[in-house]
Amino acid sequence: MKTITRLDLEDARVLIAGAEAHAREIGVPMCIAVVDESAQLIAFERMEGGKVTSTTIALDKAFTAAGAKKATHEYGASSQPGAPAYGIFSAIGGRLMVVGGGLPVTFDGAVVGGIGVSSGTPAQDQAVAQAGIDHWLAQQK
Amino acid sequence: MKTITRLDLEDARVLIAGAEAHAREIGVPMCIAVVDESAQLIAFERMEGGKVTSTTIALDKAFTAAGAKKATHEYGASSQPGAPAYGIFSAIGGRLMVVGGGLPVTFDGAVVGGIGVSSGTPAQDQAVAQAGIDHWLAQQK
Amino acid sequence: MKTITRLDLEDARVLIAGAEAHAREIGVPMCIAVVDESAQLIAFERMEGGKVTSTTIALDKAFTAAGAKKATHEYGASSQPGAPAYGIFSAIGGRLMVVGGGLPVTFDGAVVGGIGVSSGTPAQDQAVAQAGIDHWLAQQK
Amino acid sequence: MKTITRLDLEDARVLIAGAEAHAREIGVPMCIAVVDESAQLIAFERMEGGKVTSTTIALDKAFTAAGAKKATHEYGASSQPGAPAYGIFSAIGGRLMVVGGGLPVTFDGAVVGGIGVSSGTPAQDQAVAQAGIDHWLAQQK
Repeated sequence: MKTITRLDLEDARVLIAGAEAHAREIGVPMCIAVVDESAQLIAFERMEGGKVTSTTIALDKAFTAAGAKKATHEYGASSQPGAPAYGIFSAIGGRLMVVGGGLPVTFDGAVVGGIGVSSGTPAQDQAVAQAGIDHWLAQQK
Repeated sequence: MKTITRLDLEDARVLIAGAEAHAREIGVPMCIAVVDESAQLIAFERMEGGKVTSTTIALDKAFTAAGAKKATHEYGASSQPGAPAYGIFSAIGGRLMVVGGGLPVTFDGAVVGGIGVSSGTPAQDQAVAQAGIDHWLAQQK
Repeated sequence: MKTITRLDLEDARVLIAGAEAHAREIGVPMCIAVVDESAQLIAFERMEGGKVTSTTIALDKAFTAAGAKKATHEYGASSQPGAPAYGIFSAIGGRLMVVGGGLPVTFDGAVVGGIGVSSGTPAQDQAVAQAGIDHWLAQQK
Repeated sequence: MKTITRLDLEDARVLIAGAEAHAREIGVPMCIAVVDESAQLIAFERMEGGKVTSTTIALDKAFTAAGAKKATHEYGASSQPGAPAYGIFSAIGGRLMVVGGGLPVTFDGAVVGGIGVSSGTPAQDQAVAQAGIDHWLAQQK
């Protein structure tokens, strides 16, 4: 048997709070999801004005990032036509997201969860996800 | 066109906080989802110890309660063998929940959203959902 | 090869108009779907106050009634515990509806389409679907 | 709580009528769907000769346009190979449509619903959707 370390609900709230603070700064209301290292949902919030189509997309970005231990935008690069992972975007019923905005949450070299953000451009989504992680990391001293 | 009133994110947080307080009182960690009057997800939290299978169940209980403007346990009664709505439990890809724990959130006679709770017995789930509503209603003065 | 007779869009509108008239009479706003004899959707309307969960249910009742050439409430009887079609309600990803409110539309002994209604009790749904058919039949002289 | 404005059934009928008039002008029978601002279906019609595969496509174009508050052809541009949203087309179980023909319906600066059209070329679909909106807007005085 083994022991694993993962995000808890309090961590998820901190990640979401950090993400929302940055979303407000850039003026783009977001859908934000946080999952644990097993890619299971812990918490989700749709900010006022967040898109309803982005609910599922945020959930699936977090799912992909934690489950695959990889940022979703990295899949974007490797799934281009001619690239090795071409077509992976329709895997798992379309849940495997290759659009930026999903980031694994890493601590001490191990993936402990994932955060997924959607409603803006992929670059905005990714920046808001990173802001959530930065806010959370600043409290891990 | 028409105008409708619905829950916002702050309302969803209050509903979840009220539900979690009661879940702690009875010692049963829960998954809790809140949707708006169009059955679109606003917020979700899985408490420490909440069941991962209950994530989808809580989401779908909230979806059913707001979308059908009816408590999920009412469907439980009307969908028994021999009753008129027998078999409704597999509708909408199985998302239509007939197990207690999903309640519409009503204000001034109109459904403004829904709350879905899962991880305990259906009676516990329903009591926790009601506690969320009671906590929220106490603030609507 | 063969030639088949089926409902057209104008028929679908007449069926829906007849159903909506009865829905207004009984004061229950409904979701109403009409499909052709191949169970393919022709038209749909959600009346003001119709339930959003009933959208899919109305579509699937019409689909079942036309596709199986059988009223959905007949499946309700034959799918009870111990009966021959027990469990059929989860077939086709849950689209096979066994709750009343789906009726085949028959003309000259052949099924030419189907109508599905949802938002009320199964008895109300079925009565509204029948009213749509009666209204349409009255024009087929 | 908050208050929002959305399309009602009468609006949906006007949008569809305007779209169908243009579809007849260009001689391309269409599938046409209208959803509210929460991306929930209000009404649908398949014109005589509209494609049965286009039923779901029209529904999903309307869903995408209202839910994401963006025309589907804009996703077409941003989801090309090498572009930021590459791969988004398989999101939400493939419901997120990036092919032209889905337009948000906007009034007083807010998205109040969406219209989705399918059966012709994407350019034809988009023109027919726009004609529906133009017809509806002409009545909003």
